Amino acid sequence: MDLSENFIVDLPKFVEEKIAGFLACLDSCESGLMAIDLGAITRNYGRLCAFLAPTKVAAVIKADAYGFGAEKVGPVLYESGSRDFFVATIAEGLELRKILPENARIFALCGLLPGSEQTFLLHNIVPVLNSYQQAKNYQNMAILAGKTLNCALHFDTGMSRTGFCQEDSQKFFVQDFSQLNVVLVMSHLCCGDDAENPLNAAQMAKFTKIAEKFPTVDRSLVATSALHFGQDFRMEMARVGHGLYGLDGGVLGCNLEPALYVFAKIIQIRTVPAHSTVGYSAIYKTSKLAKLATLAIGYADGYFRAPRTEGRVVKIGGYFAPIVGRISMDFCVVDVSEIPDGAFKEGDFAQIVGDEILPKNLVDGSDLILHEIPILLGRRFRREYFW
Amino acid sequence: MDLSENFIVDLPKFVEEKIAGFLACLDSCESGLMAIDLGAITRNYGRLCAFLAPTKVAAVIKADAYGFGAEKVGPVLYESGSRDFFVATIAEGLELRKILPENARIFALCGLLPGSEQTFLLHNIVPVLNSYQQAKNYQNMAILAGKTLNCALHFDTGMSRTGFCQEDSQKFFVQDFSQLNVVLVMSHLCCGDDAENPLNAAQMAKFTKIAEKFPTVDRSLVATSALHFGQDFRMEMARVGHGLYGLDGGVLGCNLEPALYVFAKIIQIRTVPAHSTVGYSAIYKTSKLAKLATLAIGYADGYFRAPRTEGRVVKIGGYFAPIVGRISMDFCVVDVSEIPDGAFKEGDFAQIVGDEILPKNLVDGSDLILHEIPILLGRRFRREYFW
Repeated sequence: MDLSENFIVDLPKFVEEKIAGFLACLDSCESGLMAIDLGAITRNYGRLCAFLAPTKVAAVIKADAYGFGAEKVGPVLYESGSRDFFVATIAEGLELRKILPENARIFALCGLLPGSEQTFLLHNIVPVLNSYQQAKNYQNMAILAGKTLNCALHFDTGMSRTGFCQEDSQKFFVQDFSQLNVVLVMSHLCCGDDAENPLNAAQMAKFTKIAEKFPTVDRSLVATSALHFGQDFRMEMARVGHGLYGLDGGVLGCNLEPALYVFAKIIQIRTVPAHSTVGYSAIYKTSKLAKLATLAIGYADGYFRAPRTEGRVVKIGGYFAPIVGRISMDFCVVDVSEIPDGAFKEGDFAQIVGDEILPKNLVDGSDLILHEIPILLGRRFRREYFW
Repeated sequence: MDLSENFIVDLPKFVEEKIAGFLACLDSCESGLMAIDLGAITRNYGRLCAFLAPTKVAAVIKADAYGFGAEKVGPVLYESGSRDFFVATIAEGLELRKILPENARIFALCGLLPGSEQTFLLHNIVPVLNSYQQAKNYQNMAILAGKTLNCALHFDTGMSRTGFCQEDSQKFFVQDFSQLNVVLVMSHLCCGDDAENPLNAAQMAKFTKIAEKFPTVDRSLVATSALHFGQDFRMEMARVGHGLYGLDGGVLGCNLEPALYVFAKIIQIRTVPAHSTVGYSAIYKTSKLAKLATLAIGYADGYFRAPRTEGRVVKIGGYFAPIVGRISMDFCVVDVSEIPDGAFKEGDFAQIVGDEILPKNLVDGSDLILHEIPILLGRRFRREYFW
């Protein structure tokens, strides 16, 4: 097959070779490829550890590792030295527990849901206790089990989402919780993506004061977006999610690598006259004779219809090509008029996301957030991992 | 368990009982439920057949039956009498072929991708031929196989997406394609959701003229959104997707039933003082003392962050409650101040989508389209089917 010759000219050499190999192995009936660079994720972890030292880096691999696949990402990060992992749901914790060694700590952010106490205990998952009542319930479980149990305590300092409210804290601190071994105290910034927001310092001050009650316990306040706020914010542990996957948008300045590559097949190429309408609602009309390529990706593949498509591009044969018209459920159309004939053909692949088209580019100018991209993109495509 | 007592008071009785049963069977560690009413889909199919007769109803079950599960929906519709099914990709066709009897026709809209000719033939999938070249390739396959092969021909009349362009048609009609047995000719409206748009009549006229070349072959032009345009548009076959799933938004007036129910667990309830910030970017502040409930659903579950959340509601204990603040990746917060104490508790479930909260309500006022909701919503939850 000659697929690899002309359409991925700007990727790093080793990535280019890996992806060309995967694409060459796709069956002629397959529509696309989602390739994940585990090496990039590992290197990102290493860079983050170096950048943040002495702060420890905990790996946030909730939501199936932001769509990158917790089953693959978890063990790779463990091998790289990570011992602290955060998931959102208990089900995610249970899946992860099956594949990580016992000395990996798995924290479940949802907290101790009613009736779930035994599951946390039996499966060695650390509950992030979000209320006085949850602490009480886990303390009771500990008494019943006849041992002290590890837990994290989450204090709400402004999100009003999860975590101890003020009243919970007041009740907690006047009672005996000696059966609970608090291994982490944490809170969460609501404006971590806005360094100028005075709420950040206010939350930090509030949390610092609460954490004084636990002088020997690790404190964790920030996630990726606020890692550059400085050591006062980073404390002993940072919870790093989208940075690991190279989704920081360059804010950190520590050269995090993209880890996601998505390619969709060109299913049809056509030349249409000037003033042809393209796609639903005919929102786009060609201004002159145009060559159009139809790609096998649409909003059912998580390639959102929502954002204005002006400015959204794919890469074909080494050239950028703009999306024209609305994204359909299964297909979208790009204008390839500016790409030389012979640089591509039906059955070739277009890069949807990669090293030059970042998830960020897909959401610019929309209400979407770049985290939504890898979580939902490419679900119908073959998934491959590489190093 | 008493979960079923108080939180699903307004569903039809039989649906209420089914869902109460599912929720009661959820493990205490599970975050939510996605329940699909196959009976509603079957009844919708029956209503559509009656409404559209003598036009035949073909079932569009691409994108995993719009997220409802093609593996379940396909056989149920076959049992109800459907013999024509449309999928988007060849992979979807192959999956469907495994579970549908041989006399079910499966049309693959993506067309005859280069190299896929044998797959169509071997697996009895009908290619929607989208170009002269595809027709040529399938004709060659037919000659090689020594038999005539069934196919559909798709003529582009304004989408510029898939289908024969004018030049393709001109070439096609002057050559011998006698090895192809054309079982359907089709086109697709670009403004089917806008009855006033003059493009509809223009496309219909264009398609009608082309179809005159195939006087004995079934013609198909419309999908759900244009079913009410009248018999001139409906022709011999309508391709019905979102109508089947009750997603027509009531436009058709034939009482299509919703088929999707999504429930998320209440993981925390708290009372916060006036002027408390809620969620990311602190875009929401409570105006007075408020009771808030945190739900185990976020944009990683396809509960989009994008739309303005003003006006988005869930249903808890029989009452509507508004979303406040941004949707997070795994959680969201609702204001439950107006719901009586005792009507709900932590561990209960909130209705996210159901009979009174339609997918449409989740996308109103946004750039999203309601088709995106079932495709992506509830992916982390337990999925159950009922009749």
